[in-house]
Amino acid sequence: MTIVGTGSGRRTGRQDGVVQFQQVGDLELESGSVLPEVTLAYETWGRLAEDGGNAVLVMHALTGDTHVAHGFAGEDAPELTREAAEAPGWWEGLIGPGAAIDTDKYFVVCPNIVGGCYGSTGPSTPAPASADPERRPWGSRFPLVTIRDTVHAEARLADALGIDSWFLVLGGSMGGGRAAEWAVTHPERVRHCAVVASGPAATAEQLAWGQTQSLAIRQDPHYAGGDYYGGTFPVDGLGLARRIAHITYRSDTELHYRFGRHPQGEEDPAGPLAARRGRYRVESYLDHQASKLAGRFDANSYLVVNEALMSHDITRGRGTLREALARTGCGWVIVAVDSDRLFYPKESEALAEALPEPVEVRHVSSPNGHDGFLLETSQLSKILRDCVPGL
Amino acid sequence: MTIVGTGSGRRTGRQDGVVQFQQVGDLELESGSVLPEVTLAYETWGRLAEDGGNAVLVMHALTGDTHVAHGFAGEDAPELTREAAEAPGWWEGLIGPGAAIDTDKYFVVCPNIVGGCYGSTGPSTPAPASADPERRPWGSRFPLVTIRDTVHAEARLADALGIDSWFLVLGGSMGGGRAAEWAVTHPERVRHCAVVASGPAATAEQLAWGQTQSLAIRQDPHYAGGDYYGGTFPVDGLGLARRIAHITYRSDTELHYRFGRHPQGEEDPAGPLAARRGRYRVESYLDHQASKLAGRFDANSYLVVNEALMSHDITRGRGTLREALARTGCGWVIVAVDSDRLFYPKESEALAEALPEPVEVRHVSSPNGHDGFLLETSQLSKILRDCVPGL
Repeated sequence: MTIVGTGSGRRTGRQDGVVQFQQVGDLELESGSVLPEVTLAYETWGRLAEDGGNAVLVMHALTGDTHVAHGFAGEDAPELTREAAEAPGWWEGLIGPGAAIDTDKYFVVCPNIVGGCYGSTGPSTPAPASADPERRPWGSRFPLVTIRDTVHAEARLADALGIDSWFLVLGGSMGGGRAAEWAVTHPERVRHCAVVASGPAATAEQLAWGQTQSLAIRQDPHYAGGDYYGGTFPVDGLGLARRIAHITYRSDTELHYRFGRHPQGEEDPAGPLAARRGRYRVESYLDHQASKLAGRFDANSYLVVNEALMSHDITRGRGTLREALARTGCGWVIVAVDSDRLFYPKESEALAEALPEPVEVRHVSSPNGHDGFLLETSQLSKILRDCVPGL
Repeated sequence: MTIVGTGSGRRTGRQDGVVQFQQVGDLELESGSVLPEVTLAYETWGRLAEDGGNAVLVMHALTGDTHVAHGFAGEDAPELTREAAEAPGWWEGLIGPGAAIDTDKYFVVCPNIVGGCYGSTGPSTPAPASADPERRPWGSRFPLVTIRDTVHAEARLADALGIDSWFLVLGGSMGGGRAAEWAVTHPERVRHCAVVASGPAATAEQLAWGQTQSLAIRQDPHYAGGDYYGGTFPVDGLGLARRIAHITYRSDTELHYRFGRHPQGEEDPAGPLAARRGRYRVESYLDHQASKLAGRFDANSYLVVNEALMSHDITRGRGTLREALARTGCGWVIVAVDSDRLFYPKESEALAEALPEPVEVRHVSSPNGHDGFLLETSQLSKILRDCVPGL
C-alpha cells in the first residue's frame, strides 16, 4: 500500500480515510529500552464532538492497516490521496455513514500499530539522527514492542487529538487484544470495549505458531539478520510465514469445500519428480496469499508485530485474570467466531467470565474460521448495535 | 538411526526387530516413471506359520522407521545389532510376546516406506549404476512415489517372504493410509485392515500443511535443489518443517497445560530486541523436536514421504469412495483419536460409512491430539482385541 498522507498534527478539515501522522515522542518500553521519536500513522472518519465524547478507537489485526473503511479526501486533494481514501477498507460496512459505527455520529480513529509498515514507526523507518547519524532503517536494531507498549503510544495520540476517553474501543484478532489491553491499562479512558475473536493473552499454541512464522522469515537467506533494506527482500520467508498463518485463519471445512484435492488448472500434482510436480489448487491459493502479502508488507514488521502478538497478556504484572480485569469499569462486548481455531471461543469465554460483571459471549457464525471476524460484518454490526447503547 | 542389518533375502533364523533388506526390482510408478533397483528395509517379529496365514503387516507414519517394537538379535549378533534390536520401538507395547499382536502367534513385518531413510531406497540412496555411472545419491532426481506405489513395492516384499495374504494390515497416520490403500489395491491379500488416525485421502488442509513443510525445506539455502549430500544439510528447513508438523500432531489443550506462557528457564521473552529475545517454554519444546528430527532424518526423504502423504487417495481412478471400497472384502477396524486435529475423526467416519459393510468408528481418548495414536497403546490394544477375531 502506498502511504498517502496530509501532513502531521491535529486534523483541521474533515478528510475521512486519509492517512495522517502524529509525533508521540520517545516511547519507554516494557523491556526498559526506549524507542526514540515515534510517529503514529492513523486515519479518521467523522468529526470529534465539542465535548470529545463521541470518539471510537478501532484497532487492526496482525498485518492490517489504518484503512478500516472507505472515506473521502475532498475534491482538492491529490488524486492518489483521493483514490486511497475511497478504496474499500478491511472492515468495510461496519463503519461509515449510517453503519453500526455511524460516522455521522461518531469520530472513528484507526492507528497503525508501532512496528507496522503502514506509516507508524517500524523497522523499515530510518532511525532518527539521535540514534543513528546515518539514518539507516532500524532493521535488526528495532526493539520488542509489546501490545501494552503500543497502547501507551496510542494514548498519546488520543491526547494529541483531544480525546480524554473513548466511547468505544474495538478490535478483532490482535486488534481485540489491543482493545482489551486498552481497557485494562487506561480504565478511565474506555467506556465500552469490544473484543472480537481474541483473548486475554496469547495462548501456548499461538506462541508455537508464532515461532514458526518468525523462523520462516529469519531462515530466509535474504533476511540478513534483519538488515536487508539495501538488498533483496526476504519475500520467500515472509510468504511462508503467511501461508502458515493463513491456514490457521481459515477452517478445514472451507478448504475442503473450496479446493478439495483438485489440481490447479492443468498442473499435475502426480509428478513425475517430487521436487518439480504440479500444484494442488489449495497450494495455488496459498501461493496467492503469500505473494499478496509479500507485495504489501515488510518482513521485519511482520516479525515485530508477530512478537507483539506473542507478548499479549493483559495479566502481566497484574495478578490473575480476574484481578487484572477488576480495575476496568467499561461495558464489555466479547465476540467469538464459532469456527475459529486460532483464537478459540473458549478464550473469549475465559475473558467474559473473569470480568467484574461477566457478560455472555456473542457468537459470529461462520464456516471460514478466524477470518470470519473480517467477513461477517453484518453479524458483527448487529451484535455491536445490540450490546453498545448508543450505536 | 544407524541401520544395522543382517543381509538380504528371506530370513532363516529368528531375529526379532533386526533390519533386513529385500530387493524388489524396478518399480513402475503411477506417474509413468520407473524407479530402478528398489530395496525395501524391514524388520520382523515372530515366525511365519507353515501355511503363511499368521502374517501381520505394520506400517509406520511420516517419519517412522521399521522398529515398531523391541526384539532380540541373538547372542551371536554384533553388539550394535543387539542394541538396535533391543531398543524400544515406536508402538512398543502393542506388539510383542503376549501383546495384542502376539508375536508368539503372529509373524509381524514392518517395512520402511519407499523414499524413506531407514534402509529402503530413498533420495539419499546412491542411484544404481544403470541410472548413474557415478552412483551419486538420487537427490533432486528422486521421483514422486505415491502411497499406492509403495504398496506395490510392499506386495513384492510379501511375495519374497512367502506371504500370500496378510492376516492383518495395520497402520497409524500415514501408515493408516497405507493400510487402507493395501486393502483396496490387493483385496485378495488382506483379511483384516486396521486404519488408525487416518482417512481415505489426504484432505485439503493436509495438502496445505504439506506445502508449508515442503517449502520450509526447499527454501533453506543449504537445500541446493535437493543435491546437498556433499555439503551442509538443510537442517534449519527440516527443523522448521518438523515444528509446523508437530504443532498439528498435538492439541492446544496439551500445549496450554504443559507450557502455558512460561519462559524457558532464565530466558526473557520480553526482549529487549525483537530479533534476539529469549524463548517461551513452548518454543524450547519445538526447538527440541526440530533438532531431534534433524538429527535422525534426511530432508529429501521428508519431502518425498510428505509428497507421498499428499498423494494419498484410495479413490484415485476408482470412482467414488463407496465404489473404491466395494472391491474390498476384509474385516475393517477404523480408529480415531478424539482430539485429533490433523486426521479429524470425521475422516474416519467417512471411511467407515463407505465400507461395503459399514463399521462403527472406535475412539481413542487422548488429550494429546493426533499423536495419541502413538501414545495410547493400551486403548489401541483393547480395540484391536475387541475387533479382530483371533487377536
